[in-house]
Amino acid sequence: VSVLEIPVLIARKRDGGELSADEIRSLITAYMAGDVGDEQMSALLMAGVIRGFSEAEAVALTEAFIASGDTVDLSDLRGPTVDKHSTGGVGDTTTLVVAPVLAAAGLQVAKLSGRGLGHTGGTLDKLEAIPGFRVDLTPEQMHEQVERIGLAVAAATQDLVPADKRIYALRDVTGTVPSQALIAASVMSKKIAGGADTIVLDVKTGDGAFMEQLDEAVGLAELCVRIGEAHGRRTGALVTDMGQPLGDAVGNALEVGVAIEVLRGERDDRLAALSRELAAAALALTGEPEPEEKVSQVLEDGAALEHFREFVAAQGGDATVADRPWEVLPSAPIVRRWAPGAGVVRDVRTRRLGELASLLGAGRQRKEDVLDPAVGLVVHPRIGDRVEDGEPAVEVHARTEDDAARVLELLPEVVRLTDEDVRSVDLVHRRIGMGS
Amino acid sequence: VSVLEIPVLIARKRDGGELSADEIRSLITAYMAGDVGDEQMSALLMAGVIRGFSEAEAVALTEAFIASGDTVDLSDLRGPTVDKHSTGGVGDTTTLVVAPVLAAAGLQVAKLSGRGLGHTGGTLDKLEAIPGFRVDLTPEQMHEQVERIGLAVAAATQDLVPADKRIYALRDVTGTVPSQALIAASVMSKKIAGGADTIVLDVKTGDGAFMEQLDEAVGLAELCVRIGEAHGRRTGALVTDMGQPLGDAVGNALEVGVAIEVLRGERDDRLAALSRELAAAALALTGEPEPEEKVSQVLEDGAALEHFREFVAAQGGDATVADRPWEVLPSAPIVRRWAPGAGVVRDVRTRRLGELASLLGAGRQRKEDVLDPAVGLVVHPRIGDRVEDGEPAVEVHARTEDDAARVLELLPEVVRLTDEDVRSVDLVHRRIGMGS
Repeated sequence: VSVLEIPVLIARKRDGGELSADEIRSLITAYMAGDVGDEQMSALLMAGVIRGFSEAEAVALTEAFIASGDTVDLSDLRGPTVDKHSTGGVGDTTTLVVAPVLAAAGLQVAKLSGRGLGHTGGTLDKLEAIPGFRVDLTPEQMHEQVERIGLAVAAATQDLVPADKRIYALRDVTGTVPSQALIAASVMSKKIAGGADTIVLDVKTGDGAFMEQLDEAVGLAELCVRIGEAHGRRTGALVTDMGQPLGDAVGNALEVGVAIEVLRGERDDRLAALSRELAAAALALTGEPEPEEKVSQVLEDGAALEHFREFVAAQGGDATVADRPWEVLPSAPIVRRWAPGAGVVRDVRTRRLGELASLLGAGRQRKEDVLDPAVGLVVHPRIGDRVEDGEPAVEVHARTEDDAARVLELLPEVVRLTDEDVRSVDLVHRRIGMGS
Repeated sequence: VSVLEIPVLIARKRDGGELSADEIRSLITAYMAGDVGDEQMSALLMAGVIRGFSEAEAVALTEAFIASGDTVDLSDLRGPTVDKHSTGGVGDTTTLVVAPVLAAAGLQVAKLSGRGLGHTGGTLDKLEAIPGFRVDLTPEQMHEQVERIGLAVAAATQDLVPADKRIYALRDVTGTVPSQALIAASVMSKKIAGGADTIVLDVKTGDGAFMEQLDEAVGLAELCVRIGEAHGRRTGALVTDMGQPLGDAVGNALEVGVAIEVLRGERDDRLAALSRELAAAALALTGEPEPEEKVSQVLEDGAALEHFREFVAAQGGDATVADRPWEVLPSAPIVRRWAPGAGVVRDVRTRRLGELASLLGAGRQRKEDVLDPAVGLVVHPRIGDRVEDGEPAVEVHARTEDDAARVLELLPEVVRLTDEDVRSVDLVHRRIGMGS
């Protein structure tokens, strides 16, 4: 693509046409070289958001993103390599359960992860709540650790998919976020560049998710699966509910604590159920004949917990967290409980709940914000559950009395009760690319 | 508009919503202050190009463009003040005829003009083909000249409608040119800021125009007229044919020469006809009861030519050009004639013809290109005209034999003949805002 042709390509997309894989590759290459300006890229993105990108364009975008930087080669590891991604939710700590379960089941888990922004938490932020835990592994350290103990979770380096990083930042300020193709290319380019041959996606839908509507989430999940398959990866996706927090905890140390409780067999809740489903999905993709049984086995015989212990130790963390989570993890000085009165939980404004946790210091409003690992919220009931008069529904873990008071005041708008019966909400809406 | 709201406004336009006049004003102000980035503005423009801007948005954009810089005040001049604008064509020299005709008829003509880019010429470039002619008048000089002799044509200063200048440059590289609202706001903001109380527009349609389709050109003309009226200006528009060159000449000195021939009463062609129509339209808007008769009178009694002579002298040019144009104007060293054989002219690829003139040095491919005033093309027949065997249809005025040879080789693709009869093409397709 010569510089003079760029407006012509933008105009074709503007008029509803399609760009070839070669043209998309040239555009992304030229963008990274500075020959396509931010103003040109954002115009192209807007045209694509409104007119839509085809599946072929989404595959080509993914490929062009991957080609913009380094890729990880895991092909010399014995056995299937697996990565897992969630589109982001509230109280969503499945990675901390799924990764050790899969490692215990014989898969190689090399997960590159991100930090949280807005109302959702990031896996790296959660892991760093464990005293001593480090996420800045070099590619070589990561590779060696996976080879040795079967799992590693680290921050993606700047050299991995740099085109996605630049375009993601551009989309954020130009109103060009909501495009299935752009979201799918962003997610899948990072997963594919990360080197795993098996990819499991957890696409969230509901008030606390980026894709609020079920049909949008299903479309995104289907597109991601097809992109993964087009790049030769075994790919599956669950479309799951984010109309209420997944686990009880919202906040970094609190979420690590409940994840460890799941690994210890001390919890049988929605977090535990979804973690089992996701792990079974990964095992099914790699050909495991009885995936659910395998997951139960490694949870019950302690192998998953043992792999978690090794994982924490390998990345410099205090491994005794696996045995005494609430003693090892940092805790907030102020804990206040909120009892909403008697009734049935009608709805939980999940996005708002994530924002309240951020307000306490558990999440970032801006990239440069420093988190407090100890603060957050614990939400006990789920939609359809009955709460008795005086029974606490939410715990507020805060740095100060003022912070706690501000959040307590807002909670009645977030967890709302009714006198009538309310149906509980399905956890998994759809399974895509899973064979059946 | 706070910086955080900008992506929200962009998203509203993306989803087909409308921006208020306040929001548009704030966005343009913030853009000029650097608080809205080029990447944000181009995303907004693309959303507007695809979704469309409403008439209210177009009026607000025009107002915001005007408010970004200085405006000219002509209210102290005696009698109506008039400006004329063409959307750009090939062989379109009407300004050089219309301006002195209107001045001779008692109007005050203060025209701010531009330079040519691509396949169309600019009035300033044409005037500068006259030895000594200067277009860099200060606003004060321009005002004084109009007061004294009734007309002045000058380059717009950088302080007039700076927002349009920046956004125009942005649209050029981001595929966001084709929007009636953006084109209308760009045209009308400059005309309104220029201070004239009466505005006549010549909106071109056909192969050599930016708006190739008639319905698009009519839509643009109607929108421009409504914007002008919303800003309290008497505004009218003709939608005219650019499916072939307007005058015979394409090239700066050549076009000045034929314009002078029209003023001298030596030509009765499409250029003369359209110049008369546009001048009559301006006079009709200002309340002249017999506009056509008035135009004929000042052309026949020499008053228009005399005003042209004074105008050239006032701006430093050699006024004897009015009497002996072909002796005073620069001429090209090489003149070659092309005879296409016998037949009837079926079509003229007008845009291509403009590009060939640029190739010879008459126009710019890029802003910084230096023009040769002498070179260009003279095209004699019009669509439907019969050409006899051996009769020259086109003259090539070139700097070098090589240049001439290159163009001669391409001419058979540009002026095409047929054996059958061909209907001649109407010159004026529509009259808008003219009362009847």
